[in-house]
Amino acid sequence: MDTNDAFQLHLQKLPPQDEKTFETIYTLGNGHFGVRASNPLQGNNSHFNGQPGLFVNGFYDLTQLSYGENYSGYAQNSQTICQLPDLRFIIFELDGIRSDETPYNVKLVDKNLDMRTGVLMEIFDIKSPTNKLFRLTLQSFASHADKHLFVIKYSVSALNFTGALTVIKQHPYINQQIQSRTDDMRASRPETALDRTFIKSKLPIMLISTRKSQLALIVAQQALKDNPMQVGMIDDLPCHNKTFDLTQGMSQSFSFVYAISYPHPLLKTTLSQSSFAASAEKRLANKSFKQLLDESAAKIGEFWDNSDVELTGDTALAKDIRFNLFHLYQAAGNDGLTSIPAKGLTGSGYEGHYFWDAEMFMLPFFIYTEPAIARQLLLYRYHTLPQAQRRAREMGVKNGVMFPWRTINGEESSSYYPAGTAQVHINADIAYAIDTYVRVTGDEDFLYDYGYEIIVKTARFWLSYGHWGKDIAHKGKFVIDDVTGPDEYTAMVSNNYFTNRMAQNNLSIAVKYSNQLKHSHAEKLVTLNVTDEEIAQFNQAADEMYLPYDDQKKIKMQDDLSTSKPVWPIKETPRNQFPLLLHFHPMTIYHYQVNKQADTVMTDFLFPKDQDAAQLKRDFDYYEAITVHDSSLSRAIFGILAHRLHHADDAYGYFMQTVMMDLSNSQGNTSDGIHAANMGSSWLSLIYGFAGMGLEKDSFNLSPELPEAWSSLRFRIWFHGRQIEITITQTAVTVKLLSGNPIKFYLKHKAFKLTKEQLVNHFLK
Amino acid sequence: MDTNDAFQLHLQKLPPQDEKTFETIYTLGNGHFGVRASNPLQGNNSHFNGQPGLFVNGFYDLTQLSYGENYSGYAQNSQTICQLPDLRFIIFELDGIRSDETPYNVKLVDKNLDMRTGVLMEIFDIKSPTNKLFRLTLQSFASHADKHLFVIKYSVSALNFTGALTVIKQHPYINQQIQSRTDDMRASRPETALDRTFIKSKLPIMLISTRKSQLALIVAQQALKDNPMQVGMIDDLPCHNKTFDLTQGMSQSFSFVYAISYPHPLLKTTLSQSSFAASAEKRLANKSFKQLLDESAAKIGEFWDNSDVELTGDTALAKDIRFNLFHLYQAAGNDGLTSIPAKGLTGSGYEGHYFWDAEMFMLPFFIYTEPAIARQLLLYRYHTLPQAQRRAREMGVKNGVMFPWRTINGEESSSYYPAGTAQVHINADIAYAIDTYVRVTGDEDFLYDYGYEIIVKTARFWLSYGHWGKDIAHKGKFVIDDVTGPDEYTAMVSNNYFTNRMAQNNLSIAVKYSNQLKHSHAEKLVTLNVTDEEIAQFNQAADEMYLPYDDQKKIKMQDDLSTSKPVWPIKETPRNQFPLLLHFHPMTIYHYQVNKQADTVMTDFLFPKDQDAAQLKRDFDYYEAITVHDSSLSRAIFGILAHRLHHADDAYGYFMQTVMMDLSNSQGNTSDGIHAANMGSSWLSLIYGFAGMGLEKDSFNLSPELPEAWSSLRFRIWFHGRQIEITITQTAVTVKLLSGNPIKFYLKHKAFKLTKEQLVNHFLK
Repeated sequence: MDTNDAFQLHLQKLPPQDEKTFETIYTLGNGHFGVRASNPLQGNNSHFNGQPGLFVNGFYDLTQLSYGENYSGYAQNSQTICQLPDLRFIIFELDGIRSDETPYNVKLVDKNLDMRTGVLMEIFDIKSPTNKLFRLTLQSFASHADKHLFVIKYSVSALNFTGALTVIKQHPYINQQIQSRTDDMRASRPETALDRTFIKSKLPIMLISTRKSQLALIVAQQALKDNPMQVGMIDDLPCHNKTFDLTQGMSQSFSFVYAISYPHPLLKTTLSQSSFAASAEKRLANKSFKQLLDESAAKIGEFWDNSDVELTGDTALAKDIRFNLFHLYQAAGNDGLTSIPAKGLTGSGYEGHYFWDAEMFMLPFFIYTEPAIARQLLLYRYHTLPQAQRRAREMGVKNGVMFPWRTINGEESSSYYPAGTAQVHINADIAYAIDTYVRVTGDEDFLYDYGYEIIVKTARFWLSYGHWGKDIAHKGKFVIDDVTGPDEYTAMVSNNYFTNRMAQNNLSIAVKYSNQLKHSHAEKLVTLNVTDEEIAQFNQAADEMYLPYDDQKKIKMQDDLSTSKPVWPIKETPRNQFPLLLHFHPMTIYHYQVNKQADTVMTDFLFPKDQDAAQLKRDFDYYEAITVHDSSLSRAIFGILAHRLHHADDAYGYFMQTVMMDLSNSQGNTSDGIHAANMGSSWLSLIYGFAGMGLEKDSFNLSPELPEAWSSLRFRIWFHGRQIEITITQTAVTVKLLSGNPIKFYLKHKAFKLTKEQLVNHFLK
Repeated sequence: MDTNDAFQLHLQKLPPQDEKTFETIYTLGNGHFGVRASNPLQGNNSHFNGQPGLFVNGFYDLTQLSYGENYSGYAQNSQTICQLPDLRFIIFELDGIRSDETPYNVKLVDKNLDMRTGVLMEIFDIKSPTNKLFRLTLQSFASHADKHLFVIKYSVSALNFTGALTVIKQHPYINQQIQSRTDDMRASRPETALDRTFIKSKLPIMLISTRKSQLALIVAQQALKDNPMQVGMIDDLPCHNKTFDLTQGMSQSFSFVYAISYPHPLLKTTLSQSSFAASAEKRLANKSFKQLLDESAAKIGEFWDNSDVELTGDTALAKDIRFNLFHLYQAAGNDGLTSIPAKGLTGSGYEGHYFWDAEMFMLPFFIYTEPAIARQLLLYRYHTLPQAQRRAREMGVKNGVMFPWRTINGEESSSYYPAGTAQVHINADIAYAIDTYVRVTGDEDFLYDYGYEIIVKTARFWLSYGHWGKDIAHKGKFVIDDVTGPDEYTAMVSNNYFTNRMAQNNLSIAVKYSNQLKHSHAEKLVTLNVTDEEIAQFNQAADEMYLPYDDQKKIKMQDDLSTSKPVWPIKETPRNQFPLLLHFHPMTIYHYQVNKQADTVMTDFLFPKDQDAAQLKRDFDYYEAITVHDSSLSRAIFGILAHRLHHADDAYGYFMQTVMMDLSNSQGNTSDGIHAANMGSSWLSLIYGFAGMGLEKDSFNLSPELPEAWSSLRFRIWFHGRQIEITITQTAVTVKLLSGNPIKFYLKHKAFKLTKEQLVNHFLK
């Protein structure tokens, strides 16, 4: 196997897709921003089919939400991530005809993404209206060394003529979004309008601001020194421009770097604009393309060193896995003020909102392989505690916080509360993620400074939102009414098993960490007003949490009434009627037992010690039969559980559908952006699934079992400051301590000691 | 007591209210249209505070509904009743200044409504910008003899000057609505735009049409012969106009009649416009005000003969009762294509929609006193069966029909389904009303031609929407999931007691009438495909209907889980936080046991034989304690049940709050229109409550008991073609057969025979 090829994503080897899907797949990003890999001549010209754009994490405008009946406490504005002008955009002028005024013919010849370095290479053949043909080659990357930079090199060579070609690098428009109508509530809302001014500078530097959210950011454009270009003014707008004399067969190159600031309130940005301009001019001067690329490639190289998963036995699959890891890395906010949008930074689907999947489906990858990023992602939630506290009061919840179901700025942005605000499990999901982070990293500082406060305040929410049952069925138990679990095909129920079990965990870890900090840092409890009485209340509610169980079917019940409804006739429903939410009224869907995604079985997954294999099998069989996987978050969970049940074929089947989702556009909407959480699920499937990773007290356990098709699986994790490499074959497991102190771990629940000098080789068969 | 005064509603004797509330209270209508009693100089000038308008039953436009997340099957358009130009509007010109261009000062001096004749008399003192003062007296009525006519007489007399006054009777604007912003989802939506053309005619005749619903109606204006006026053109628009020479102390009069057509599709209206014009010219020629008034007064006199309720012992209350009956009569559609909007034809609140209250709260009054109107109201539902059938299919319900929760044209117009479409009890409510109509009137033709089909098709809905329980709690029972009962503070529950009990009744009467018609009109069952097997299914579902009951508290449970929630802290909630729906998120409200209105106890009311007195008392006490009466439909039901429990003080208290609601503006929103259903409830309270009216097989029972404050209560009913007068005093009941054949009836469940020659006098004490 050619090592290099293992990281190449070559267009010709992908299944055929429409243009917008490829734009998504080849998006370049670095957690701060993402640039779709569109036709660089499109701009906002609707003559072309693409949907180009730059997305900056945390840069959104507000669009007013409208309701037929507008109730108190409803989210009044949706935050919508802004679609900014495509940085790849370029204007050519041939025979006096500008490509942005009279569309040129653009033919995509090839694309190749080198995931190892993060460099995208593209070839387009372009024909002017005067039938002059030239080839445009792009080489671009989002810098991983300096998160503000996007770098792009253009090469042009004439194919059928000799003569002058003028290049204008300018953004004559500001509103990038190209109108499209859709009834899919998962796509984005109508456009938002942006304003733009150019800052006084030697360079073209734009200050882009939103109308309603009053945010702004600065984008500076600089020609790199490889082939300098003059700054001029065309149509009263600053630009770089140059006229090349092309000769057939000889290519000419020129490259640019863009510096994209963090978004800040407009006022702050305006005040700092001149110093930003000065600093940009200075920082971007005298940089070469190669220099910037080397710095970025080195940095992403570290990511691969930490995070790569090497699978042998299926070359194509090994690459698909890397594709998922690459996009996760590109999507994750890393400034403590942003998280991972559901579509990464590859599109405006779901408005660019952060959901529970950031913590539950993507964070584990970072916790184990890039803990510094995981910490930043959790800090984002910490910084939105004030909004979550206000929201709780607004919803009549007396204590604690209520994190929003979907948001960018920390405020609730969900306009359909039964499948939004009612998913209060988000609170417990965040607490679960913090606990996992602390247990895997041993980062006690984070716990003390940030994590504990979130855990306490989310635990308080449950005490306020739930109550002690008084009726016969719930007497003496802690019950939680009016919630929606992960399965959005069932809404506003009492005692959703998943929610109650997660709330129980939230309360338990609040007790655990309270007791721990009471001894080491008693002042923290005083600051947060945590009393022994409150700890006792947490403990009691956790101990007596009501968990609905069907004694007839001997399964965990999804909620108090779930098993009483008729089952949706899944087999009789035509394929084109899925996803159900696009074809049936919510009331119609709620009227049946039908799951959009893993719900109750998520607890089997998250709490493996809750049930024995027989219980797991009953839950799995029951819920698998009523689940339609209309959510991309579903299959991976079923796959991991199938692995635990030693249903090797099922586990492999579910995994293959998970890992291929965006490359095969199997959900049909990759054009709106990647399914970031599903990519996180791929990693979960590999590590929690096939490698059987699980947490033990201060340690971890592996229960590996590879599909027959695979020869080996190798990956690295960080655990309590140690880097550990794990290699699994059909017959053996090898565990290697790459750095750090000796540690105990478990293999199939048998303890081993790992020291630096020693490998652990364990034979499975 | 002055008999005449008993029908006078004199402004000076009413509690002080704001102008818009009085506009509502004094609205004149006749079931076809309503005209608010506004400042006749306002027009659509926002200089004044009023909200003038003409509302025509069934004339609506569509406004697009917008949703943050727009799901399949959602209502896409709201029907909104159109606010048409005020027919009272008039323009004066003094010293060259037109009152519609430069606002005059208008001071309301007095109003008096003679409910006996339906004539409204009003006095305004008007001052021109040149300080000329004159008095304007209006006398107006909506004709009850010819439902198309609105008649108005203006008298002017100079108070401080002598000279010329020009009168222009013209509608220079078409869009009447005056912008107002509100967050109250019970008020109306933003305006709709109307178009208007004048038809070629000798008279000013407008064809008014809507933009989206493509409906049109025609309004013709004619000066009456009492003081003829010329038709002319001013500003290119036709008008009547005349200049009067005023002398102080001498008044001059002129009067107009408007003919308002029924609304029809625009195309049809356009095609018939010339014949309408010709006919209007002919019909309206040579009519005098007195002639039109006499015809109308005679007709409304018949209404009072049939429907008056005479109460002695409380003169003010007696008048309040008449006020309610008068407005009910004014509100009820009577063309078989319209029903009773929630606000009558007095305002645009609730968009002018028809709800369940038409059948459940208002129809009984008409069934017993004006059965011909009751029949028209039920025909409206019959004519919307095709829409209800389409809606059922759209909602995935395989058989039967699904009537809309709120509508004008028969299509669902509810934009918040948990408190809209989910109130599927509307189906059973309509069936219940038909059964009552048939049992009271004996109108077998209606049953055969229309009613039976509705009963069968609604019964089929229940068989499809509900299912047979399989879990332990519901095994072998017929259960109905995902519904909302009348109480909108609890939504989307399983086995709402009210819904299930009403569905049971719907199924039972389907069986009853099927068995009846099988013998008399077997062909009807064939036409509707009703088989013995289906009748058996109806019967079985009715017999085994699940009715939730709390064995601990020994009360009917509102739904499967209702009694498990904590009770809303009603006493601790500040007064200004009511109604709760304007101050709390729905999820917050649903999280508690708190009832907006009578829900489960509605079944105690509707099915008196379901429970003994002890059960009724437990239900009453439990639900009264958790009910906040944020709906105007609530108190009357509790009052009637209090009467049955012999809680005389409670019954009287609830009744007094019901009967006074609009005159005292106790809900605070009478300005948006009357609470028509509450007015129906007043009648229910008197007849079903204090008189104790109830149905027996082919007969009725009275169990009267008057509040101590009252001397007597007298009313008339029609029962199976007989008119019967009932007089109740503190000590005796007198029942008199006014027309028709002898009949048996019951007094406190004791049988009596009533013949034409004989009164029944029964002593209560």
